[in-house]
Amino acid sequence: MTDKPRFAVVLSGCGVFDGAEIHESVLTLLAIDRVGAVAQCFAPDIPQAHVVDHRTGAVVEESRNVLTEAARIARGSIADLATFDPQAFDVLIFPGGFGAAKNLSRFAFDGPACTVDPSVEQAIKQAHAAGLPIGALCIAPAVIARVLGKGTLTIGTDADTAKALERLGATHQGTAPTEIVIDRANKIVTTPCYMLATRISQVAEGAEATVRALLTLRETP
Amino acid sequence: MTDKPRFAVVLSGCGVFDGAEIHESVLTLLAIDRVGAVAQCFAPDIPQAHVVDHRTGAVVEESRNVLTEAARIARGSIADLATFDPQAFDVLIFPGGFGAAKNLSRFAFDGPACTVDPSVEQAIKQAHAAGLPIGALCIAPAVIARVLGKGTLTIGTDADTAKALERLGATHQGTAPTEIVIDRANKIVTTPCYMLATRISQVAEGAEATVRALLTLRETP
Repeated sequence: MTDKPRFAVVLSGCGVFDGAEIHESVLTLLAIDRVGAVAQCFAPDIPQAHVVDHRTGAVVEESRNVLTEAARIARGSIADLATFDPQAFDVLIFPGGFGAAKNLSRFAFDGPACTVDPSVEQAIKQAHAAGLPIGALCIAPAVIARVLGKGTLTIGTDADTAKALERLGATHQGTAPTEIVIDRANKIVTTPCYMLATRISQVAEGAEATVRALLTLRETP
Repeated sequence: MTDKPRFAVVLSGCGVFDGAEIHESVLTLLAIDRVGAVAQCFAPDIPQAHVVDHRTGAVVEESRNVLTEAARIARGSIADLATFDPQAFDVLIFPGGFGAAKNLSRFAFDGPACTVDPSVEQAIKQAHAAGLPIGALCIAPAVIARVLGKGTLTIGTDADTAKALERLGATHQGTAPTEIVIDRANKIVTTPCYMLATRISQVAEGAEATVRALLTLRETP
């Protein structure tokens, strides 16, 4: 056992267009290590909504598994999200990428009426009920809003997405690329990352600010 | 056009066991951005040697293309390595992962007698002839040694791999996880990353030190 704060990191595949955004995922893991915490990656054991050729942008006739692909980012060290136990962690965090809106939820296809993968819904509900701070990057705040139906969140500045979050019961707050929004009451921290960032260093900055804020919230009753 | 130093980053797929090591690749891109340089990703347009299920470690019956998978790390912005023009760049750098030893070269299968992909061989030879500094992380120094047949390099401390590099005409220098080896005469910078690193922050440190040293070498005649 370790005395270090323990972050559960939920990945949604491997690649911005059909899975977890790779830079956001890696820079979240880096931020967690740099603050002296430990990370355990998770992903749902389900088929991806589809597979996108990242060179051409085209959807291709192929089938991949979200957990199997996410294992690439995790270097093999990953667990099925259905086994997530909130008692074993201090923080739950979701990097972004279309995978959050295509695999973890169907927000990219169905908007505010979207379904959410049952293991994702359960992890968020259990973590929230147990008082764990929850972080979400990029488009992942949409999943939090869909499950909790509340919270002050940011996805950057996109008006349509912001409106969709509000329809789900959340309050949207506009931000610049490296800014974070802290909802102290609900213990939620969000940051836009590649919803706005044009440089990878901005993503690193947003991810690190999010991880630091989550650690602070952890210490609040 | 930009006055910023231009790094050509050669990826070898997407995933440590059959492609580019994702953390090393992303943290190389981060280091390049943080020093105020720009990155252009490249990969050879060839089939992967094989596909490894990163959850189980098993080789699976599937076929993937190195350039197409590398595009996941590059967020779609990537070029065929066969189009690499050394005149358009200031530095050439190779993140590691088994892809360097399975796709860019066959070092993982055939050791010092391995073949190297023609576009990789040409890029290294042309860059070296044009006086561009070359960086290599993790196992990627083996590719440099195979192509140039010289250089003072590090792959960390693994005795067998070090011996293989020496057999290729290179001189091996042992290092700690975050250390770099600078060969000023040949303008080569190498660092062990996940050949030794046990934490992602060590990889970030090694990648950043490598990128900074490459920039310094660029200014040397």
